[in-house]
Amino acid sequence: MQTLESFVAGRWAAGSGDRVVLDNPSTEEPLAEVARGGLDLGEAVAWGRDVGGAALRAMTLVERAGMLGALSKALREHREELLDLSQQNGGNTRGDAKFDVDGAIGTLAAYGAWGKACGERGWLVDGEGVQLGRTPRFWGEHLRVPKVGLAVHVNAFNFPAWGMGEKMACALLAGVPVLEKAGTASAVLAWRLAQLVVGSGVLPEGAFQFLAGSVGDLLDHLGPQDVVAFTGSADTGRKVRGNANLIAHNVRVNIEADSINAAILGPDVGDEDEVWNEFLGNVVVDMTQKAGQKCTAVRRVLVPADRADAVAEELAARLADIRVGDVADGQVRMGPVASRAQLADVRAGIAGLQAAADVVCGGPAPIADKGWFVAPTLLRARDPEAAVLHEREVFGPCATVVPYEGGAAEAVRLTNRGGGSLVASLYSNDRGFVTEVVTGIAPWHGRVWIGSEKSAGQTLGPGAVLPASVHGGPGRAGGGEELGGLRGLEPYTQRVARQGDKGRVSRFTSGE
Amino acid sequence: MQTLESFVAGRWAAGSGDRVVLDNPSTEEPLAEVARGGLDLGEAVAWGRDVGGAALRAMTLVERAGMLGALSKALREHREELLDLSQQNGGNTRGDAKFDVDGAIGTLAAYGAWGKACGERGWLVDGEGVQLGRTPRFWGEHLRVPKVGLAVHVNAFNFPAWGMGEKMACALLAGVPVLEKAGTASAVLAWRLAQLVVGSGVLPEGAFQFLAGSVGDLLDHLGPQDVVAFTGSADTGRKVRGNANLIAHNVRVNIEADSINAAILGPDVGDEDEVWNEFLGNVVVDMTQKAGQKCTAVRRVLVPADRADAVAEELAARLADIRVGDVADGQVRMGPVASRAQLADVRAGIAGLQAAADVVCGGPAPIADKGWFVAPTLLRARDPEAAVLHEREVFGPCATVVPYEGGAAEAVRLTNRGGGSLVASLYSNDRGFVTEVVTGIAPWHGRVWIGSEKSAGQTLGPGAVLPASVHGGPGRAGGGEELGGLRGLEPYTQRVARQGDKGRVSRFTSGE
Repeated sequence: MQTLESFVAGRWAAGSGDRVVLDNPSTEEPLAEVARGGLDLGEAVAWGRDVGGAALRAMTLVERAGMLGALSKALREHREELLDLSQQNGGNTRGDAKFDVDGAIGTLAAYGAWGKACGERGWLVDGEGVQLGRTPRFWGEHLRVPKVGLAVHVNAFNFPAWGMGEKMACALLAGVPVLEKAGTASAVLAWRLAQLVVGSGVLPEGAFQFLAGSVGDLLDHLGPQDVVAFTGSADTGRKVRGNANLIAHNVRVNIEADSINAAILGPDVGDEDEVWNEFLGNVVVDMTQKAGQKCTAVRRVLVPADRADAVAEELAARLADIRVGDVADGQVRMGPVASRAQLADVRAGIAGLQAAADVVCGGPAPIADKGWFVAPTLLRARDPEAAVLHEREVFGPCATVVPYEGGAAEAVRLTNRGGGSLVASLYSNDRGFVTEVVTGIAPWHGRVWIGSEKSAGQTLGPGAVLPASVHGGPGRAGGGEELGGLRGLEPYTQRVARQGDKGRVSRFTSGE
Repeated sequence: MQTLESFVAGRWAAGSGDRVVLDNPSTEEPLAEVARGGLDLGEAVAWGRDVGGAALRAMTLVERAGMLGALSKALREHREELLDLSQQNGGNTRGDAKFDVDGAIGTLAAYGAWGKACGERGWLVDGEGVQLGRTPRFWGEHLRVPKVGLAVHVNAFNFPAWGMGEKMACALLAGVPVLEKAGTASAVLAWRLAQLVVGSGVLPEGAFQFLAGSVGDLLDHLGPQDVVAFTGSADTGRKVRGNANLIAHNVRVNIEADSINAAILGPDVGDEDEVWNEFLGNVVVDMTQKAGQKCTAVRRVLVPADRADAVAEELAARLADIRVGDVADGQVRMGPVASRAQLADVRAGIAGLQAAADVVCGGPAPIADKGWFVAPTLLRARDPEAAVLHEREVFGPCATVVPYEGGAAEAVRLTNRGGGSLVASLYSNDRGFVTEVVTGIAPWHGRVWIGSEKSAGQTLGPGAVLPASVHGGPGRAGGGEELGGLRGLEPYTQRVARQGDKGRVSRFTSGE
């Protein structure tokens, strides 16, 4: 059986201590094992900061952008192999695998393109200069300069490729070396990606490290110039944010936790509208793509009460057409969840929702003898106000139809009961309704996706995270921000004001 | 004796429980007392959010800007009274009092002016729109919308007027109601300001609350839409950041802690240069203005070793001319520190520095029978590498000359040993030296101030915080950011991406 190695301080090493076996979630066949400990993570931090940081900071943004472009290309050359691994280790259909792998390749390429427009300097210019005194001899400008630390990326199991790729792209373009910790369940694909990154020779020494095992005492080695970006559960996010060493040194922490995302059907949409179809189609995609294991997937489907039955019926019919099974079978449209632990969690979650909702289709019962399969499960709320519907995330192919009386104010109130979400989607052609809902939910969301007759068929659904738009959300969703074009570099930089004679300040800004 | 009241949930109330007596730091005469507890802070949070937030969000940025302008004017009309109170309660010379009071008036006016240019809408537009799909029917734009919570401002004792004014200006312009907690020692001035703010009738009901007593359980009432901005010691900052409720809800926390700011004299500057004089003058101002109680004040004076004696001698001579005493005497140029506790802290701090530095002038010994006076104290490092010099902040009229061999790399290394600072100042006409130092220290600073022959006499010194430049610093300085023009509104807003048909998305952005 394959033993996964970490790449730390310039060496591949297997680690030691407790071992975890990773499997094929469709078949339960063991694929690889990984030792959880035994690596000197203090050395890793120092090596990244000193060796990798110095090399990256010596490069301009254009040079770093070129590096991301080359990296994207290097991964693209191994796309088929990566897709195969994603299917085996992630329980992903081929479509799911592409979503992850192509997401990584595409996001690296996007940052490669954006970085090329940033100029032959190592920092970002932040806004215009301002005269501070009576003459330009007292002048102020702002820059964003790379932090002289290490970016520690604690990635989630659901997107081993995209998650690593999007975080790396931002940190490396900013000029900050990375240490990528893989989500354990899907670490085989992450490990292969790390091999390709290292093997490509594209990155300077020290710019990239990879941890296949546990975080261990990694966070205790960090200081004021380091950055932690975490994607995962709200509970673990809380532990990261509460880490005493991170607090003591005011280490920047960026958290992207899951959320109880809502899709809202407007009262104006009838079943003959194009938007109706788009709404149903997107909900089904979000429920079944990656077996619902997307942090942006719809969990609450807000439907005007007079259409709740029709929507539930239509969704159930479409879900019945989804073939579930071993993703090695090309006809299968939904695979298993990622691990035995996830399966248990999803089943318990569905049972939890049943306290306030009835199962329309699917349910928590086992559906296969082998593999971590769960049926696409649609529920219908008996009590739309029940806390469990708005607070419990079931990280699997599961969503709940929540009837509301149809007014914008109630849609806003119910949506915001999620306590902060990554994304909400809204389907309506009624300008007044859209304006009122968007205004009301905006402060509680990182992204609002608006479906209308004009955009029907023209968009990617709300579950897709695009590098040009910010990804993150307040409160329950972690309070962090990633991506959004060059906004994604912000966590990896220090914004610094410079004051003095205009000539001197401006010359430095432009890098002359 | 005056009892200070808080203004909470629309009512003035004296509170109850433990009482603290505030005094005149020059004379030890009691001025007022304040009860530390007894207020329903949960009610305050709800009232601010519900009543004040709704009113502010219903206003456009232009309307809120008009409100700030009117508030600035209302305070200006009471300027003389405020300056008197500042002298009595803060131990401030008239010049120190102006620095604080005029700082508040000016910062409110500056944000009033900037806000007027933001347009007739309630939110900020963040960057340009981007086409996301093959056609403009899939389009993305970002806004910064006001958070629907309360801004809790925990202010420091050293700038009761400016500190409250600058934080209020940013939050209120963003559309977020404030609760201002005064630093206890100087709460008399803060309380009078609060009376003027409330009495002016300029702000809508609920937009402003004032807490004269303790924070109590305030932080435990906050949620995901609230914001905490804290200015004060690094130790207390850590406690705020570590608050379990704030962590549990990912509440945004902005911390501005003190720092061990450096001034760096370049190796090219001789005693006949104009910059030499500016350097000495600015160091003396920072040491003595507000008796050195500025978070931006110079604590470490890096001087090429061959000029360390000359600099120490010159500084000592200038400090000897500073008359210290009761600020009621117009000839006095430096008053006492703010409280008995501060005096004890400063004396202990100077004694601590003596482990690695010799006293050139001043020292920890008492210099008066009455009042919290301490002599302007200059030290000279025996061991420039000693940790205490770079890590212990003495929050009083105290700085240490730290000799360095004269190269840029060593200046950078020693400066950065502060672990993150609000500001560093650099005095040099040598372009190469300036570029190397600025590049090296930028990631560890929120602001870098460059003094040269071109800017000499044209600038405010590095200790002055201007609203157009960001204020804050990484690591030891708290990791927060304030001010910087409209950048100062960022902590009070949620950045939200909107995706959909271009017409729909853009129409909403422009507020049509």
